[in-house]
Amino acid sequence: MRVGVYGAAGYAGMDLVEILVKHPCVELVFATSNSFAGDPVPDTDLRYIASEDARLDDADAVFLALPHKASAPVAARARAAGVKVVDLSADLRLETPQAYEKWYKTPHPNPELLPVPYGLPEIHRDRIRGASIVAAPGCYPTTTLLGLYPLLKMGVLADDAPIIVDAKSGVSGAGREPKQNTHFVEVYGNFSPYNPGRSHRHVGEIEQEIHKINGKAGTLIFTPHLLPVDRGLMASIYVTLRQGFSSDQAQSLFEEVYSQEPLVNVLPPGQQATLRHVVRNNTCAISLTPVTDRYLHITSVTDNLRKGAAGQAVQDFNLMVGFPETTALL
Amino acid sequence: MRVGVYGAAGYAGMDLVEILVKHPCVELVFATSNSFAGDPVPDTDLRYIASEDARLDDADAVFLALPHKASAPVAARARAAGVKVVDLSADLRLETPQAYEKWYKTPHPNPELLPVPYGLPEIHRDRIRGASIVAAPGCYPTTTLLGLYPLLKMGVLADDAPIIVDAKSGVSGAGREPKQNTHFVEVYGNFSPYNPGRSHRHVGEIEQEIHKINGKAGTLIFTPHLLPVDRGLMASIYVTLRQGFSSDQAQSLFEEVYSQEPLVNVLPPGQQATLRHVVRNNTCAISLTPVTDRYLHITSVTDNLRKGAAGQAVQDFNLMVGFPETTALL
Amino acid sequence: MRVGVYGAAGYAGMDLVEILVKHPCVELVFATSNSFAGDPVPDTDLRYIASEDARLDDADAVFLALPHKASAPVAARARAAGVKVVDLSADLRLETPQAYEKWYKTPHPNPELLPVPYGLPEIHRDRIRGASIVAAPGCYPTTTLLGLYPLLKMGVLADDAPIIVDAKSGVSGAGREPKQNTHFVEVYGNFSPYNPGRSHRHVGEIEQEIHKINGKAGTLIFTPHLLPVDRGLMASIYVTLRQGFSSDQAQSLFEEVYSQEPLVNVLPPGQQATLRHVVRNNTCAISLTPVTDRYLHITSVTDNLRKGAAGQAVQDFNLMVGFPETTALL
Amino acid sequence: MRVGVYGAAGYAGMDLVEILVKHPCVELVFATSNSFAGDPVPDTDLRYIASEDARLDDADAVFLALPHKASAPVAARARAAGVKVVDLSADLRLETPQAYEKWYKTPHPNPELLPVPYGLPEIHRDRIRGASIVAAPGCYPTTTLLGLYPLLKMGVLADDAPIIVDAKSGVSGAGREPKQNTHFVEVYGNFSPYNPGRSHRHVGEIEQEIHKINGKAGTLIFTPHLLPVDRGLMASIYVTLRQGFSSDQAQSLFEEVYSQEPLVNVLPPGQQATLRHVVRNNTCAISLTPVTDRYLHITSVTDNLRKGAAGQAVQDFNLMVGFPETTALL
Repeated sequence: MRVGVYGAAGYAGMDLVEILVKHPCVELVFATSNSFAGDPVPDTDLRYIASEDARLDDADAVFLALPHKASAPVAARARAAGVKVVDLSADLRLETPQAYEKWYKTPHPNPELLPVPYGLPEIHRDRIRGASIVAAPGCYPTTTLLGLYPLLKMGVLADDAPIIVDAKSGVSGAGREPKQNTHFVEVYGNFSPYNPGRSHRHVGEIEQEIHKINGKAGTLIFTPHLLPVDRGLMASIYVTLRQGFSSDQAQSLFEEVYSQEPLVNVLPPGQQATLRHVVRNNTCAISLTPVTDRYLHITSVTDNLRKGAAGQAVQDFNLMVGFPETTALL
Repeated sequence: MRVGVYGAAGYAGMDLVEILVKHPCVELVFATSNSFAGDPVPDTDLRYIASEDARLDDADAVFLALPHKASAPVAARARAAGVKVVDLSADLRLETPQAYEKWYKTPHPNPELLPVPYGLPEIHRDRIRGASIVAAPGCYPTTTLLGLYPLLKMGVLADDAPIIVDAKSGVSGAGREPKQNTHFVEVYGNFSPYNPGRSHRHVGEIEQEIHKINGKAGTLIFTPHLLPVDRGLMASIYVTLRQGFSSDQAQSLFEEVYSQEPLVNVLPPGQQATLRHVVRNNTCAISLTPVTDRYLHITSVTDNLRKGAAGQAVQDFNLMVGFPETTALL
Repeated sequence: MRVGVYGAAGYAGMDLVEILVKHPCVELVFATSNSFAGDPVPDTDLRYIASEDARLDDADAVFLALPHKASAPVAARARAAGVKVVDLSADLRLETPQAYEKWYKTPHPNPELLPVPYGLPEIHRDRIRGASIVAAPGCYPTTTLLGLYPLLKMGVLADDAPIIVDAKSGVSGAGREPKQNTHFVEVYGNFSPYNPGRSHRHVGEIEQEIHKINGKAGTLIFTPHLLPVDRGLMASIYVTLRQGFSSDQAQSLFEEVYSQEPLVNVLPPGQQATLRHVVRNNTCAISLTPVTDRYLHITSVTDNLRKGAAGQAVQDFNLMVGFPETTALL
Repeated sequence: MRVGVYGAAGYAGMDLVEILVKHPCVELVFATSNSFAGDPVPDTDLRYIASEDARLDDADAVFLALPHKASAPVAARARAAGVKVVDLSADLRLETPQAYEKWYKTPHPNPELLPVPYGLPEIHRDRIRGASIVAAPGCYPTTTLLGLYPLLKMGVLADDAPIIVDAKSGVSGAGREPKQNTHFVEVYGNFSPYNPGRSHRHVGEIEQEIHKINGKAGTLIFTPHLLPVDRGLMASIYVTLRQGFSSDQAQSLFEEVYSQEPLVNVLPPGQQATLRHVVRNNTCAISLTPVTDRYLHITSVTDNLRKGAAGQAVQDFNLMVGFPETTALL
């Protein structure tokens, strides 16, 4: 398969290229970057080209690691040309143009594309398999949803209690473009919350997916923090269980739900998930702490650029075109 | 006043010395360290001496920055000699020997000393003022309690909801003795929870103090994390409010309760507390995020070695001997 | 004295403000920043104002922490208004417009100002004392020159051997404006040389000063590196001594030359200078390693924002106006 | 081939295991660690066993990532059992027991083993190929020698000038055992020289190898520094060239000498070698800066755990047993 990567010089794009050049069934035919056009693409013989110079008819599939709003128009052109699309931007994750406009404060550039399958294979594998276009989830939603999924699916959360997610992300999650808040000196030795409560754009995406699994789940409280490391993401999740399901039962529930999942690793009781478990690999690791009968604390971790972005996009791609799901990912 | 510092080569001890040498009313007469005995004490003309070589009759007051179990016997000797004591260890924080044995898995070495005033001036100033012996609180309890105090005092938390504290501490909180988990390579690029749920020893101390303020508060869920920075501590607190008190009212409540507190800084609405606000100073900074009417998210930060240890110990000392409370701390 | 700071929101400017607000004889009357105009100035009641809104007639002295080329015109206006000037930019460090144009590739904006005293008090104290305008040296030149000065002054370097300086600077030395090479993710876990050999602009400044002390010194080889810390600078200097002076004699030479210098700290034999010795204080620390009789290795360290910038500027200021030299610096 | 790893839980040992489990022609049969015996070995189904429980007759070859003094006796037993040995310790690097005792201050435990081939393939490939026992070089020697080799081989260094190596290593180079100087808080934000001048043990090893290539080379001046990153090593080398060879010629000399070397990467003119080029891969990257005609500055970088330890050991192993040299390394 010939594949192209748009936005290949961003952090997710660079990880995508790194994974794809090791993929035995894939030939990378182009990699775009408007900022770095002309520079060599690491680990390849290619040079970055401008987005508008990419020839869609050279590719069987494209990965879009572009900013939101810029991505959907490229997706539309690719689909018109019969090219398969894995979109890593936010443009196709929310199912309606109205939801998009609510969270991104701008009209959806290509509402005709919506909805598309949400590319979290552990939850929506059947919809992704064979699809022509998929929306790869964000890093916070992936990590949070995998930490909640078995509970939501079994309906064991108390309806009236909030779902609290205290999340921490390495700085690559903020993108490669230099900004004041990603300056080394500003981040070094610091730790800071941002977009707390319910103000982060990923709240809309996470709640949409929660409600698809379980319509009665409580309010999401979600506070992300900037962590002074380059990569890695932790969602620390605190939930209240309904009567009749005890926190002690969570371990075996998670182990069962994820028993066949090669990229989700439920840690043994007593062991805590840390960034070290996932940095530079394509898995999600989850640990469970029964606090009291009713209260459960879940720690879910991913590499924000891997299972939280590029790794998952390739996992989606493998499902879309019929390769073994973990090709190039283990 | 002539003061001595026990355990002066640990991280809290070093900050104590740094503060005390700038204190205009204090002369540092000795600094003990069994590991570094004979080495020069930074910023002074002294050399560390072994604990047993310290002469209590040279001092009017002593600070004990010793491990738990080692501290109480020194406190007892100092009190017997008429020397005032600020104890930074855990030995005197819990009010009963039973509580101590429950959390520290060892009999209390000097139960006759208990109880002593709990040295959190913003809450117990009257008991500390003029006292001969004070238990300076731990870093997690200080940061958590200051973030909760106005709510507990006003009784506005929902009785049946948990108090969730997702906490993060810089590595100096783990002490200066080299261990596997504080090796640079183990910490660098990592982020990890430890003693999650209700297993950390500080749970006992925090709950004791919560219940002294408000006996009906809900279950404490407390998960600390090791943060790859040298100093700084954040308590991210998630609470549910009772009917009749809206999260919007929290800002003015906190501002009012802390309006006369020179070492607690309630940030304006919309601004988030970060480590940068407190590292290397002696304050606690707090920010409030109303999530929904019922749910409030509080971020409370301190320097774990300052307001979380040495700074607060000097604040206690100033109150005990009648100096202006913030001498050497601003 | 009423003082103003131009460029007060840059990293050197922020340290300047931090030092000046503790200076007992100084009132800070304005702080400019075009990027942050309107924001509060930390530790003060002021707000940043645009450069053009600063009223020179409000001030007795100004500190210019501006980019090169922007600084000299403000210096000229300040001098015309009878205001004393400490310039932290590169504009007044080189003694001739020709040298400036050679190293900065642009004509000097105000050649009529040149030359001015070079503000390294340990070398040029007499010229700085009482001066109306001073050029505060760069961080690399300060650290390098203090590490070489006793040897240059005594004429004990071999004429035909190079002076090799392998230098390392924390990221704040690259300024506060966000750029690709100061992005957290680019710096984290990396270490990189830049402008190696003789291409860095500070080569001109260092050689000018070397030759003022000793006209026969050898070629300067100077390679700076970006160090993944926020602040601190090390110059690792390797020199060859002339016949008749043995490396063993260096320790007592340095101790003698700097014996009366409150801000230069010659470490005892066997102890190595590290960033920890100088970060957040206003000193330079130097350690000497005799390698063989002929070869000497010198390690010289400063905080690039303190003795390498803001601290030294205040030291200059104190000399210019007649305050004790170390006021606000110890 | 069945291979065992001694000292498999140290940092070099862990990288060895990581590489070997991906090696297509190798089966890992045991991994020893006295400190972690019983714990699972990451990426394998094995558990660490105590050194004395390892069965040499299960293995065709062993890698020894043991402390010096402990390694040679195991090497001797392995050779007696007909097992091939790649020794990563210092025990077999120096060619005589006298040299060993001089630098390690202890008699050599197994002088009968000396000398063995020095496992730097780019210099001694012919001696390594087919050998039964090889001494894998240290990280500082590897990085330094590869940066000097073309110059030494061509005899273009000035005889009477020193070879100056200012080196910097990530903290994993200090080993996994917790010590005061590797405590996170001691290293964070710091940068420090150690064993400066000619006191580091690697001086003996580097000079031995320099003189094997070129007996007239000048004095080695070598100062290592502890760099606050987990992995990566830079040797910044400053040399004086003899008359008749200009620094401009170095680039083509290096390109030619290393043209067939898959694991040495000579960067194009103007590009500087940084840790980023080599961290987590098995190569050495080198950049050259002509400073003046006579003076050349060379930057040579490796990952201290890869080309500086585990990667190079596997490269040696591949040569010893006849596998393609870069198997499992690219």
